[in-house]
Amino acid sequence: MFDKFREECGVFAIFGHSEAANLANLGIHALQHRGQESAGIAASDGTDVYCHKGMGHVADVFTPSAINSLPGRMAIGHTRYSTAGDTALLNAQPFCVTTNKGRIALAHNGNITNAMEVRRQLESEGAIFNASSDTEVVLHLISRSREKTLSAALRDALLQLEGAFSLVLISTRQLIVARDPHGFRPMAMGVLQVDPPAYVFASETCAFDLINASYLGEVEPGEMIIVDDDGMRRERYAPRRQKSQCVFEHVYFSRPDSIVFGRPVQKSREMMGRLLARQRATEADVVVPVPDSGVAAALGYAAEAGIPFRMGLIRNHYVGRTFIEPTQAIRDFGVKLKLNPVRHLLEGKRVVLVDDSIVRGTTSRKIVRMVRGAGAKQVHVRISCPPTISPCFYGVDTPKKEELIASRQSIESIREFLEADSLEYLSLEALAQAVQDERNEYCYACYTGSYPTDLVSVEDLVTAKLRR
Amino acid sequence: MFDKFREECGVFAIFGHSEAANLANLGIHALQHRGQESAGIAASDGTDVYCHKGMGHVADVFTPSAINSLPGRMAIGHTRYSTAGDTALLNAQPFCVTTNKGRIALAHNGNITNAMEVRRQLESEGAIFNASSDTEVVLHLISRSREKTLSAALRDALLQLEGAFSLVLISTRQLIVARDPHGFRPMAMGVLQVDPPAYVFASETCAFDLINASYLGEVEPGEMIIVDDDGMRRERYAPRRQKSQCVFEHVYFSRPDSIVFGRPVQKSREMMGRLLARQRATEADVVVPVPDSGVAAALGYAAEAGIPFRMGLIRNHYVGRTFIEPTQAIRDFGVKLKLNPVRHLLEGKRVVLVDDSIVRGTTSRKIVRMVRGAGAKQVHVRISCPPTISPCFYGVDTPKKEELIASRQSIESIREFLEADSLEYLSLEALAQAVQDERNEYCYACYTGSYPTDLVSVEDLVTAKLRR
Amino acid sequence: MFDKFREECGVFAIFGHSEAANLANLGIHALQHRGQESAGIAASDGTDVYCHKGMGHVADVFTPSAINSLPGRMAIGHTRYSTAGDTALLNAQPFCVTTNKGRIALAHNGNITNAMEVRRQLESEGAIFNASSDTEVVLHLISRSREKTLSAALRDALLQLEGAFSLVLISTRQLIVARDPHGFRPMAMGVLQVDPPAYVFASETCAFDLINASYLGEVEPGEMIIVDDDGMRRERYAPRRQKSQCVFEHVYFSRPDSIVFGRPVQKSREMMGRLLARQRATEADVVVPVPDSGVAAALGYAAEAGIPFRMGLIRNHYVGRTFIEPTQAIRDFGVKLKLNPVRHLLEGKRVVLVDDSIVRGTTSRKIVRMVRGAGAKQVHVRISCPPTISPCFYGVDTPKKEELIASRQSIESIREFLEADSLEYLSLEALAQAVQDERNEYCYACYTGSYPTDLVSVEDLVTAKLRR
Amino acid sequence: MFDKFREECGVFAIFGHSEAANLANLGIHALQHRGQESAGIAASDGTDVYCHKGMGHVADVFTPSAINSLPGRMAIGHTRYSTAGDTALLNAQPFCVTTNKGRIALAHNGNITNAMEVRRQLESEGAIFNASSDTEVVLHLISRSREKTLSAALRDALLQLEGAFSLVLISTRQLIVARDPHGFRPMAMGVLQVDPPAYVFASETCAFDLINASYLGEVEPGEMIIVDDDGMRRERYAPRRQKSQCVFEHVYFSRPDSIVFGRPVQKSREMMGRLLARQRATEADVVVPVPDSGVAAALGYAAEAGIPFRMGLIRNHYVGRTFIEPTQAIRDFGVKLKLNPVRHLLEGKRVVLVDDSIVRGTTSRKIVRMVRGAGAKQVHVRISCPPTISPCFYGVDTPKKEELIASRQSIESIREFLEADSLEYLSLEALAQAVQDERNEYCYACYTGSYPTDLVSVEDLVTAKLRR
Repeated sequence: MFDKFREECGVFAIFGHSEAANLANLGIHALQHRGQESAGIAASDGTDVYCHKGMGHVADVFTPSAINSLPGRMAIGHTRYSTAGDTALLNAQPFCVTTNKGRIALAHNGNITNAMEVRRQLESEGAIFNASSDTEVVLHLISRSREKTLSAALRDALLQLEGAFSLVLISTRQLIVARDPHGFRPMAMGVLQVDPPAYVFASETCAFDLINASYLGEVEPGEMIIVDDDGMRRERYAPRRQKSQCVFEHVYFSRPDSIVFGRPVQKSREMMGRLLARQRATEADVVVPVPDSGVAAALGYAAEAGIPFRMGLIRNHYVGRTFIEPTQAIRDFGVKLKLNPVRHLLEGKRVVLVDDSIVRGTTSRKIVRMVRGAGAKQVHVRISCPPTISPCFYGVDTPKKEELIASRQSIESIREFLEADSLEYLSLEALAQAVQDERNEYCYACYTGSYPTDLVSVEDLVTAKLRR
Repeated sequence: MFDKFREECGVFAIFGHSEAANLANLGIHALQHRGQESAGIAASDGTDVYCHKGMGHVADVFTPSAINSLPGRMAIGHTRYSTAGDTALLNAQPFCVTTNKGRIALAHNGNITNAMEVRRQLESEGAIFNASSDTEVVLHLISRSREKTLSAALRDALLQLEGAFSLVLISTRQLIVARDPHGFRPMAMGVLQVDPPAYVFASETCAFDLINASYLGEVEPGEMIIVDDDGMRRERYAPRRQKSQCVFEHVYFSRPDSIVFGRPVQKSREMMGRLLARQRATEADVVVPVPDSGVAAALGYAAEAGIPFRMGLIRNHYVGRTFIEPTQAIRDFGVKLKLNPVRHLLEGKRVVLVDDSIVRGTTSRKIVRMVRGAGAKQVHVRISCPPTISPCFYGVDTPKKEELIASRQSIESIREFLEADSLEYLSLEALAQAVQDERNEYCYACYTGSYPTDLVSVEDLVTAKLRR
Repeated sequence: MFDKFREECGVFAIFGHSEAANLANLGIHALQHRGQESAGIAASDGTDVYCHKGMGHVADVFTPSAINSLPGRMAIGHTRYSTAGDTALLNAQPFCVTTNKGRIALAHNGNITNAMEVRRQLESEGAIFNASSDTEVVLHLISRSREKTLSAALRDALLQLEGAFSLVLISTRQLIVARDPHGFRPMAMGVLQVDPPAYVFASETCAFDLINASYLGEVEPGEMIIVDDDGMRRERYAPRRQKSQCVFEHVYFSRPDSIVFGRPVQKSREMMGRLLARQRATEADVVVPVPDSGVAAALGYAAEAGIPFRMGLIRNHYVGRTFIEPTQAIRDFGVKLKLNPVRHLLEGKRVVLVDDSIVRGTTSRKIVRMVRGAGAKQVHVRISCPPTISPCFYGVDTPKKEELIASRQSIESIREFLEADSLEYLSLEALAQAVQDERNEYCYACYTGSYPTDLVSVEDLVTAKLRR
Repeated sequence: MFDKFREECGVFAIFGHSEAANLANLGIHALQHRGQESAGIAASDGTDVYCHKGMGHVADVFTPSAINSLPGRMAIGHTRYSTAGDTALLNAQPFCVTTNKGRIALAHNGNITNAMEVRRQLESEGAIFNASSDTEVVLHLISRSREKTLSAALRDALLQLEGAFSLVLISTRQLIVARDPHGFRPMAMGVLQVDPPAYVFASETCAFDLINASYLGEVEPGEMIIVDDDGMRRERYAPRRQKSQCVFEHVYFSRPDSIVFGRPVQKSREMMGRLLARQRATEADVVVPVPDSGVAAALGYAAEAGIPFRMGLIRNHYVGRTFIEPTQAIRDFGVKLKLNPVRHLLEGKRVVLVDDSIVRGTTSRKIVRMVRGAGAKQVHVRISCPPTISPCFYGVDTPKKEELIASRQSIESIREFLEADSLEYLSLEALAQAVQDERNEYCYACYTGSYPTDLVSVEDLVTAKLRR
């Protein structure tokens, strides 16, 4: 409903716990914000690999009886953003297959940029594909590898892939976790104090908090971690490369209570707000966030600028698929279902409105109008990142370049479109400072258009996105 | 899941719009926070009165085809908190019946304190009851009235009732809205600019905002408003009495973006926070609200005390019926499903934790532990209302007196139970000041135990509550 | 889908068994053919009366958890044919209410012909009605009775009613079963050998067979049977009148394995077929029933006529709500979804086609065409009852008089409409002989138009039918 | 619920009709008796291949919106018997995949006896498998074929397979239908008179009858039929071999109104009954079928023996998943939910009870008891096929050999187990005569234990069956 970039997945894994599937269930519930369209868990009891997945929220897909159908001491879980319909279930993860390395299940967060190329090669060799997801390619490569062990075969496979992937995989014997050499997408590692300790992995640490696991650190880019009854082993499967961690995780995707890429998200956001305030002084009466994602930056902005922070927009968290707009159309109906202004906080005020990003600009315009309609004298829009000018090919759902308002319009003309009194984006330098990127370890491609990997073919990538 | 008092209902009504049922649908969606267990709408096209209701959220009960089954230019809607099961549907509102005054549908928010007594009388006269709700009593009294017109019969009925009711009723010809003489529960009046204007009524004004209606003011206690094709008439059906508006609407129930009893809720809450800060000076590093309801008071507190406000607890808005706690129990599991602390905001800090109320104290203790577990050095609990010592009989779901921790323990022993470093409640005087109650027009019975109406029989009331 | 008269209800009752609700569940499953749109069970454990009902088949409405919500040693059950939608659930039986005689639940099969008149009187006295069903009238009359005991109050109520009713009622203490003085609708009595014996009642004895109960005989017209912890008492509540048992129960409604009005249904049907064969000699090669209802009569016909019986039409028992006819319309699509001819049994044959009734004639014509399309040389239609010329007002769903083809056309013109080579109906005398009605104890109103009771107002009855 | 062999699938295909998916929907509805657990349809509009499948009956899986999601002029459909759960959906057909021959969808009826062996080979070459079904093997072989065209690749694939398969396949351009060289499972061909004519294929001709298609004949064993915009071509892909048509299709599986292997099923069944009567003269009063499958043979038996045929057992066609047996167990509960005896037809009678087969014998015993419990003086069981002594590996769900009562007991001891007065099976010779098998073109392996193909490994086959 809101015009935002969308994360495509959340992943979770656990090894060594008698209630592995239920903990995976809780883990992906904590990661629900990373994907609401399908959910899945695969588990193994050493004999077989079991899988349950379905369309919808974690709490709807995983009834107690579904969890009971997933025995064993290891499990992986996945939440996914995707398009509707039956085909979507086909693409739901984890993927569970039988190979010459045995039964395996795999889930990943990211996007393999050369998936179409590899797939064409595999098809020419006779491989068949059930879904349109890039995940299936990894499974084929594992199966075709001449290596005897699963971990060696996975290494073989991963070295043929380009792009972004934080993946978790179980066989009947092992849990393997791996991250692409650039480390685009996050993957945290933790431990649960049972005897012997159970290892857990998740896209964000908020999944650890819910199950009382402790955060140990990040899975390193180019690293593969193997957990089995012999314990946990970390190994580097690919040479060290320049890190390219997705900065948008800190700007918008991740929950503020998570640690991502080793850094608390809330801290980054507050700093974005502070630097935004320093960047341009603004005479105003109140700082108002677009909830919920704009809150942390707005608090930082208000503190730095010395302007009172107010919750001038209230979000309705009840959602509904089927609201029909009355024929005598209600102005900004879609936004109104979600947000409502608090008139007496806005009336007669000069408002600094803090949001995390502008994609097409249409929703932002409606919010500016809504604030002004509630009596605001001035509306100054402040965005806690630079103008978004390029699509992402590393696991984020973004519209085409031409739909991104900042890719074709100047800031002044965006301001005009938004009907705002002023508009300020956080500078690229300030964003890097906010995430403490002294060593240039983040990816800013959506703001710069300069991608950290060679992209085989943009047509392929766009096609792949359309089919996903 | 949270240990809170619960509002029992939200009501909405509209007369004079070609899409009456759909607007009622949107109206009760905006009032969803007042009751999530069942939803219902009745509409009339002048020929018959149609009704659709179901268990669950508004968006699930009202599919487009359900709305299409509700023709006509007037409608009333209702959301309800109630217990589960099939019987619950029987108690869902509106109630639609055939009487000697024709087909009527009625919905109300409140609790008729002499309902059991009236019901026993009606039963002795041969009346039969389908549900356990007090609403049915009103319908019987209307039907038995010797008065010829519906409005006169309703007046007849209302004069026999005691307690709290803000009710809406439609026949095939009229919409009637009435409020009890004390005005316990809110009922706002608004207008939608079509030609001729459509009148709308709602428990809170946030329902008007969503449909672009303008707020005209409150329906007065003891007032009855009749809307039909001849226009709108206001009349007093009962003598003027001392107002007893539920102060807890401002403390917790209502949305902060609503105007309730003529006053913006957000304004009251911010003032509660400010007065709480003035009441006792506290050395602290951060002010943290228990979200979402504690945010406005915490902002007021932080501003007044000059201590930074931080979102140190993050709420997960995804809900699920079926989460099973792992057998190796997770500490504070239930609360953790909903709240997660932001460690780096709390670690090493002296925290002022602002919440709106303490009922049994069990949840509050878990939250205090959670904050301390995230590294807080001190936790100072601040409650934006006085200690809750008495149950409510005016339409609020409260536990029995003995379950209210403040009814049997001193503040110091509550503090000890909560494991808090200090505990401060807002004083009654300060609460009255926060809602600007110069004329003593609010009900504070849950804080004082002094009820503004004679209660026939507490046993009856408790029984009635149990059966509801 | 088929053009038939439809039974409106099946009822079941049991007293004195620890699994009363589950046996009621099985009982109404066996009576499912008497009504497929809603199902309900009420039970009592001596403390309260519990009720569960829903739209759909018994097996869908009564999950194990629903049955578990119905404790106690007595229960009544009901299956109902009705129209779709939410309102329909409102009319689903049993009705469970609170009265001055305590909590009671009531279910009935039949139609109270003066219900509208009584209802108008009750409304004028201030009674309110939730549903449009005639059942509610009975409950009001019970409640208004000055009698102290439930059974006396029920007697009071029944004496004010006219028409057809076989009803079952439970309070927290008793089960009462009653039948109207004419005995329009069946009600059998049985016993289940536990200690002490459990009494059971059902519209048809097939419900007894499933639960291993023994058939004891019929509840007599004008009789009331009271079962409680003191045992079972039979009493006559109304003077003896001429019996008017619905002959159509034997023609079509009841299952052939049931005993109805003390007589095996299968026996009647076989006799109808034999008498039909005697009535008019027909040269033919095969006798083919329209399954399933025409089978028994066809067997009788074939045996009597000495013509081979063949299952020349096969019925598809899988049903579906949503089949869409292709736009290049398929001839007789609706009938084809249910019936298919066996070509090699029909090809070149002179076929006697035996069915139980013709209502509008449209379906019959399609079946004749289908048989001829499969190669039959001649199609001789034989109907095992007289021409249906009048609607029923005693609990059967029939179209209006003018829609009954036999009410406005001669037999010859019906034959022409059906495109049959010949058409023969069973004579009224033969029908009476088939059910062994020597004492004129059956109702033949749908064949004669002469109703055994005074009908207050046909307009009322038609209105009542439309609203049901 | 009944102890029968179970057919595993029904298939349907159509090429050249604007409503292909809807006609496939109707076609598989007519084949619903061949598999009730899942249903699926794939269609192509020349651009892509679309697929929808789900658990449950055709009418539940295929809503109008599901059918609308399947555009194009060709479609294939499938109904399947399988075990419950999520995994089952994975095995639901058609399988839709992307290969180097493009997008294809495949459905089949049968069982590939060397599937495990081929699969192991494919796995060793790196192929991955999503499901446990043998169908996936065919898709892999197609994809790995060096042949350029789809039909040539399919030929390649089929020549590597052993066992039973009647398969339908669509690409974006063609429909291909093929049958194994032995012709175990049926596959009829028909035509629908549109311009140009649409070709249709189905497991049984009853699917043609519903959509007004004409029967053209059988797809020949070892034949492949290709339909595309250039018309219809038949070609032999494998050398001529001895036919092995499943005789059990005529004994039990197929609908009596179908033509299967070119012969009307009803005709075979009537003949089985006649030959059974000739085989052993029995003094009896009535012939009673176990409905519905025993009806045709019982009619033949009765006609031949000159004993009256009676429907002495009535079947309840309403089904339910959730019936719980009362704890005071009801004798023969499971059978009673489905069958009820007609006492007055059986009481005091010597009964010939005709059924089509005995598998474990447990259900048959219950039915014999039920008939005797209804008063039968003697019960003579007559089975319209020989004793079943061996499991089937050609697409039929059968229990293990040791569970087949006839594999380990003499006829006399089976009779004793059944508590029957006499027991007679149709002889193998008579069965062959009933289906007019002069040229020995039927498979009788379940009666003889002599399988018409080499079976690679019975362990593999049993494993495969267990996983299916």
